[in-house]
Amino acid sequence: MELIIGPRLYSTWSLRPWLVLKRCGAQFETTEFDIYSDAGQAELARISPSRLVPLLKVDGETIWDSMAISVWAAERYPDAKLWPADPHARWLARSAACEMHGGFMALRTHCGMGPDHTMVGPDRSSPPTGEGLDRDIRRLVSLFMDMRTRFGAGGPYLFGEWSIPDAFFTPVATRFRHFQIDLAAYGDDGSAQAYCEALLAQPDFLQWSAEALR
Amino acid sequence: MELIIGPRLYSTWSLRPWLVLKRCGAQFETTEFDIYSDAGQAELARISPSRLVPLLKVDGETIWDSMAISVWAAERYPDAKLWPADPHARWLARSAACEMHGGFMALRTHCGMGPDHTMVGPDRSSPPTGEGLDRDIRRLVSLFMDMRTRFGAGGPYLFGEWSIPDAFFTPVATRFRHFQIDLAAYGDDGSAQAYCEALLAQPDFLQWSAEALR
Repeated sequence: MELIIGPRLYSTWSLRPWLVLKRCGAQFETTEFDIYSDAGQAELARISPSRLVPLLKVDGETIWDSMAISVWAAERYPDAKLWPADPHARWLARSAACEMHGGFMALRTHCGMGPDHTMVGPDRSSPPTGEGLDRDIRRLVSLFMDMRTRFGAGGPYLFGEWSIPDAFFTPVATRFRHFQIDLAAYGDDGSAQAYCEALLAQPDFLQWSAEALR
Repeated sequence: MELIIGPRLYSTWSLRPWLVLKRCGAQFETTEFDIYSDAGQAELARISPSRLVPLLKVDGETIWDSMAISVWAAERYPDAKLWPADPHARWLARSAACEMHGGFMALRTHCGMGPDHTMVGPDRSSPPTGEGLDRDIRRLVSLFMDMRTRFGAGGPYLFGEWSIPDAFFTPVATRFRHFQIDLAAYGDDGSAQAYCEALLAQPDFLQWSAEALR
């Protein structure tokens, strides 16, 4: 099994299924290549029908899209409990992860991922601005607070135990930290910030972060 | 069970889970409201945490996002076979539907949905243009041809029998028809066009279309 990803420093889409596969205990190789270079783009056109990363090569198939790979993993590794067992939590875990998958364009456009507490990553010499950015951050804070309140009793993650939405929101936590965004200014009672810190302290993410900076 | 949607004329996100629920034979009410008006926006803020449609109200819960609702339906109505039974087909059906869920921004921005063969819908007095639009159309044509070739033996839809990706690509078919886009100019050997025509002839879609123009 091989996961093909973009640069660990920047590719939020790549981080998500990588975290999911790590959580499964899956044995897989990770192939990183520079999708931002001309050579990388040419190679991508050759191996990726959608010209996007990530890709999972498994069982003679190439599965694309971070969510499709995550759902494949949930099916293949049921013991990893990648979705919450409680039906209501599971329905909303999918809603939350899908909202991230399809939305938050302003945040994704204006606040790149910074994988570590160092200055590596997007320029942050001035605070990010952009139409819709405030609304995106406010919505994320509200979502994090709501889900933590309803479902967070069993652990520090969005639905208690770690699940797929946590993979999808880990890049958000890196964006918030990188740009030092004060979530309290967006309505956080502290639980959204605590949730982000839990994501950033998760051992698999720390491994990714270390590899990104290598 | 209640599905809350935006205007049938324009809301591609709403059409998708509506088609899915129809396919399940689910008994549900559809509530349409004008998300483009100030009053509609205020109402949306009241009922929708994400301020987006569609929403599914069921079992005391509000599930949001077109994909999350579709996956809920696949779980609730296994007999509807909303994902292909063959594993490889199923993995790629998810990839294709997720690619649509998260991508094709140029097409979505520059080619609004036209729900019928009439002139109702976005202005089409000049051909749509926009950065990335050609690439999006070419990719869709290629995807449609590839999946039809590999998996289309059992029926006219992307994976033969109707499945969730068909719900996600029905709005694409309406965009192509509305703007009279000649798919042959984007590499189609005829099978992508035939697939789009199958989507537009599907009885549930015809019902939506009729209701949109009422």
